[in-house]
Amino acid sequence: MSTLILIRHGQSRWNLENRFTGWWDVDLTEKGVAEAIAAGELLAEKGVLPTVAFTSLQTRAIKTLHLALEACGRLWIPETKDWRLNERHYGGLTGLDKAETAARHGDEQVHIWRRSFDVPPPDMEPGSEFDLSADPRYAGIAVPRTESLKLTIERVLPYWESAILPQLAAGETVVVAAHGNSLRALVKHLSDISDEDITGLEIPTGQPIVYRFDDAMTPGERRYLKDT
Amino acid sequence: MSTLILIRHGQSRWNLENRFTGWWDVDLTEKGVAEAIAAGELLAEKGVLPTVAFTSLQTRAIKTLHLALEACGRLWIPETKDWRLNERHYGGLTGLDKAETAARHGDEQVHIWRRSFDVPPPDMEPGSEFDLSADPRYAGIAVPRTESLKLTIERVLPYWESAILPQLAAGETVVVAAHGNSLRALVKHLSDISDEDITGLEIPTGQPIVYRFDDAMTPGERRYLKDT
Repeated sequence: MSTLILIRHGQSRWNLENRFTGWWDVDLTEKGVAEAIAAGELLAEKGVLPTVAFTSLQTRAIKTLHLALEACGRLWIPETKDWRLNERHYGGLTGLDKAETAARHGDEQVHIWRRSFDVPPPDMEPGSEFDLSADPRYAGIAVPRTESLKLTIERVLPYWESAILPQLAAGETVVVAAHGNSLRALVKHLSDISDEDITGLEIPTGQPIVYRFDDAMTPGERRYLKDT
Repeated sequence: MSTLILIRHGQSRWNLENRFTGWWDVDLTEKGVAEAIAAGELLAEKGVLPTVAFTSLQTRAIKTLHLALEACGRLWIPETKDWRLNERHYGGLTGLDKAETAARHGDEQVHIWRRSFDVPPPDMEPGSEFDLSADPRYAGIAVPRTESLKLTIERVLPYWESAILPQLAAGETVVVAAHGNSLRALVKHLSDISDEDITGLEIPTGQPIVYRFDDAMTPGERRYLKDT
């Protein structure tokens, strides 16, 4: 039996301001910090102690990981950061708040982008203030111009197969601290959720989700750690 | 040209209380946190931005690394933690403060242990309150019972050669956040300091030390980043 723990980063400044964030590197709020610490305290309380960690290249997920690991006395475990665990890239919507997006594109179109499985938002304008293609963090990586949830899944799952699953198969207790949509990609795969249903599934911030794997590496039910 | 940055962790609770710490996992003080942040701010100010990080398995070094990386906008770089960068193991002196050690062993003996290159302190008593040999963090590792500086060097240098030097040879800017004696081991090697002189060389906390390597991987002079 091995265990997978998924943690969505705590509240970020732009979650609070209701702006499309995607790959833009926004820090946690004080509430987000508290959520991350509480997640780690819950891991300690339940005795579900990670032995290996994965996170994205984005500050809000990395800090959530570090705060949670410190709170459960596991800051010393190995951690790997990879862009394939980044949030979905919101393309030209990045940086816009709800009102700006609706004013520019109309409520109906925004609803389609938010909720459709495979319709990506418009491309990020090259050279726009939120264009990260020249950021040294992404050197050697073809930064997407935009991503649907489907495109996000297409880069998360190969990483899951090649990097994360082998650790679980080796018996490790793996924690993945990541983002709403990169975690949706994993939950869709592990809980076999349809394209239609996955876009409506909310992953709460700072709330550890746990899967237990049997010896054939079949995941059991998805559960919130607080309910176990 | 590649660059090596060495940072000794900021002040810990036991630095403050003047107790032998070694492998015991003591947290940073508020001053230690501030020192780590200042170290990262100095990296940013001088434009010496790490691309790869190494640290020990001890909280005070890991937190120093994370705080410094966040302060220079580099929390996303890959980091590797390894026990071979841990502090020197102080054996049976672990946990004792200066007065207790002197009362138990005499001032002269304490001076010998502190300042000799190859005389280790008495062994840690198995099962004593500071015995870490059953700590899951060190699973699979033969936790030393005690270490002289010489023994510390004998585990730091092979790690330097096998893990850190190849990153520098690949052109990375490498930061190592570690401890007084694991950093002494590196400085002794890189600056060719004698056995006699190295025990008296103080590595200040939170003060980045920089070596520039030429194309033949020969290190230049040791300098404090603040003076460059």
